[in-house]
Amino acid sequence: MARVVVDVMLKPEILDPQGQAVQRALPRLGFEGIADVRQGKRFELDLEGPADEAALARIREIAGTFLANTVIEDFVVRVEEPAEAASADNNAEEGAVR
Amino acid sequence: MARVVVDVMLKPEILDPQGQAVQRALPRLGFEGIADVRQGKRFELDLEGPADEAALARIREIAGTFLANTVIEDFVVRVEEPAEAASADNNAEEGAVR
Repeated sequence: MARVVVDVMLKPEILDPQGQAVQRALPRLGFEGIADVRQGKRFELDLEGPADEAALARIREIAGTFLANTVIEDFVVRVEEPAEAASADNNAEEGAVR
Repeated sequence: MARVVVDVMLKPEILDPQGQAVQRALPRLGFEGIADVRQGKRFELDLEGPADEAALARIREIAGTFLANTVIEDFVVRVEEPAEAASADNNAEEGAVR
């Protein structure tokens, strides 16, 4: 069973009030040095079959029609590697065991 | 300027009504073969400085105290590679130019 991740973020030119609220709160809470925060959505789709090109094409269609509003949002579809899910690589830091 | 991504997902044992709503809608909309859908949040933080170990430790603290509710949510902090942001690798499929 393959896992596909769809990341949906507001387009860069679209105002992101949620991200701004987080960004403005951080200095008050004692965290400096964060220049910008954007908040979006992450969908994890578990497929019954393999994540082959046909499945990914279908998921891109799902993402573009239902998961993202492509007028104001961009999306990225990517296969989550089993290694990525099971253990952190050099650049990934696990906040908690998933 | 470095970009750090914080993915926040409900813990596996916590019911995810948003993800379930998406999963149940898909067959009605003509998309079969999706066994499970989970919906979470993705935060993109742009740092003023480099994404060194000190900065990541601070971001893990931000994520664990403000971005995620660690009673019901897990989070993962990772540095987004410039290559990942600029171009899709073998397993990534760009839905739109970001």
